Amino acid sequence: MTKIAVDCMGGDYAPEEIVKGCILAYRELGLESLLVGDEERIRSILKREGFEGKLQVVHAGDIIEMHEPPSNVLKKKHSSLYVAGRLVREGLADGLVSAGNTGAVLTVGKFVIGSIEELERPAIGVALPNPKGKTVLIDVGANVDCKPKHLLHFAVIGHTYAEEILGIKNPRVGILSIGEEEGKGNELVKETYPLLKASRLNFKGNAEGRDIYAGTFDVIVCDGFVGNVILKASESLGMAVLQMIKEEVKKSLLARLGALLMMPALNNFKKKADFAEYGGIPLLGAKKPVIITHGRANAKAIRNAIRVANEFLAHHFNDRLAENLRKLILQEVRA
Amino acid sequence: MTKIAVDCMGGDYAPEEIVKGCILAYRELGLESLLVGDEERIRSILKREGFEGKLQVVHAGDIIEMHEPPSNVLKKKHSSLYVAGRLVREGLADGLVSAGNTGAVLTVGKFVIGSIEELERPAIGVALPNPKGKTVLIDVGANVDCKPKHLLHFAVIGHTYAEEILGIKNPRVGILSIGEEEGKGNELVKETYPLLKASRLNFKGNAEGRDIYAGTFDVIVCDGFVGNVILKASESLGMAVLQMIKEEVKKSLLARLGALLMMPALNNFKKKADFAEYGGIPLLGAKKPVIITHGRANAKAIRNAIRVANEFLAHHFNDRLAENLRKLILQEVRA
Repeated sequence: MTKIAVDCMGGDYAPEEIVKGCILAYRELGLESLLVGDEERIRSILKREGFEGKLQVVHAGDIIEMHEPPSNVLKKKHSSLYVAGRLVREGLADGLVSAGNTGAVLTVGKFVIGSIEELERPAIGVALPNPKGKTVLIDVGANVDCKPKHLLHFAVIGHTYAEEILGIKNPRVGILSIGEEEGKGNELVKETYPLLKASRLNFKGNAEGRDIYAGTFDVIVCDGFVGNVILKASESLGMAVLQMIKEEVKKSLLARLGALLMMPALNNFKKKADFAEYGGIPLLGAKKPVIITHGRANAKAIRNAIRVANEFLAHHFNDRLAENLRKLILQEVRA
Repeated sequence: MTKIAVDCMGGDYAPEEIVKGCILAYRELGLESLLVGDEERIRSILKREGFEGKLQVVHAGDIIEMHEPPSNVLKKKHSSLYVAGRLVREGLADGLVSAGNTGAVLTVGKFVIGSIEELERPAIGVALPNPKGKTVLIDVGANVDCKPKHLLHFAVIGHTYAEEILGIKNPRVGILSIGEEEGKGNELVKETYPLLKASRLNFKGNAEGRDIYAGTFDVIVCDGFVGNVILKASESLGMAVLQMIKEEVKKSLLARLGALLMMPALNNFKKKADFAEYGGIPLLGAKKPVIITHGRANAKAIRNAIRVANEFLAHHFNDRLAENLRKLILQEVRA
């Protein structure tokens, strides 16, 4: 039976919602977790929910605050996040879920758990929705200044994610640039292009910003700076659009009635678009699954994150990734 | 009387809609233009519209296609775009409007018209809508690989645009990064930060992707690669969201009725969000106003672009910009 270490003290609604998420995962999906954090508080929630003794608790007395510098986590060795990471590193847990300080979770993923041998750097991939399906954007924040080799690795990670987890056969891979034609882009893109072209990936050339939500590529590769600003801009654009429409709707009674009638359809759409529904964002290429959820994660989001961590294990994601890194990248580039 | 050179052969609906746009600008706003392109075709449209002899035509026999490499424009000296640019450079026209190949228009703006003396590189700024007003994102594609000094200049250009054209007093300036705190970001951001901090701009530190559509900054500075992918991703996200909502709405009769009732409010919103309405994107810092409109520009969009070019002239935008470059940037950085 696999066990995911869950950082019960990270996130806006910790420990309450996090512990409840672990209970949900067990009750609804039969998935076990290791609850890491303030033992007394965790046990009192478990007791209240009638779950005492059914889930394993590991005490960690310290906490990483949401706005602490991420590097602090390597000094605070008694924090729930660090202890959870250590349990994974030592093989006592099979993956990590945290709704805490994203930078700190990344730091634990990169430096406490570490990446698989074939890889220099793990990367964060998100499956963004489009009218035809999903497009994986990778990296969206784990690696800020990148070399061509890193982007090549991200492409293989994204390929493996699309194929193994999203079920997309022979995914179409693109590199994010500012024009379709080969030769368009910044220095990093121009240097990475030939590496991708020479690989055994299904490389389709440059993708533009407009391809991200168009369904024209299955995997789009970029450095973590670019991916992060795009991801956050997209979230904020979505919210701004909703707010601006709301304000227009408020002005007319008929429009308000219309909005009411549309509500079920809008909610269906929101469910599809909301990637919190998917159960967090994975740090891909870490030795064991590391799932970073939104700081506002509730019990359901935590349950989903635990489910996703288990999916990565069930699909032997890391074995496939290691295999692909050997198989899809030519020897001369790998060396 | 100012005269804007209009490239009548560029854009999906050229020359028809472009010529009609010049007529609209004259008839509705009293603004003159110089119509550059195939003289015979332009004159026949003018004649049909009853405008023969009222607007000046300059013949140019060649055309830059939408998918030609932008650098071609410097060789095709008889293309409508190049001739229009030359008229501006020689002082025979006071600005340029084109719906043609964006890269080619940029090339003419940068190399035929050139930037004002105080500036190394002009930049493209767009005023993006948010629930509270507008935020200028600069650069969105004129400069791919940038140095810290360029970003500092973009900040001053964006400041001048916000203050003079959008009427925002003492605009709050931020640099796009992946975390709020000083020290977060890639190398370019880290090196630019102290220059902005030392300037006399109203510098508010790092902006994140989510700030672009939140109204928390008036000007957000980034390199043209990052700005371009964000702009195009935003457009495509908007379209994807509309399509996905439409598909949900189709499934239910009530939702379809609701959508019908909401239509006027949705159209009001679309008008606010559609930056084609604003009359194109300006290349800021060129010696004379250069307005790049969407390839799909219709007569109204061209009329608006001519209006915007005249606004830049009426506000003495370039004088203000030159002044700000001297006033807001410290001598030691300028040197």
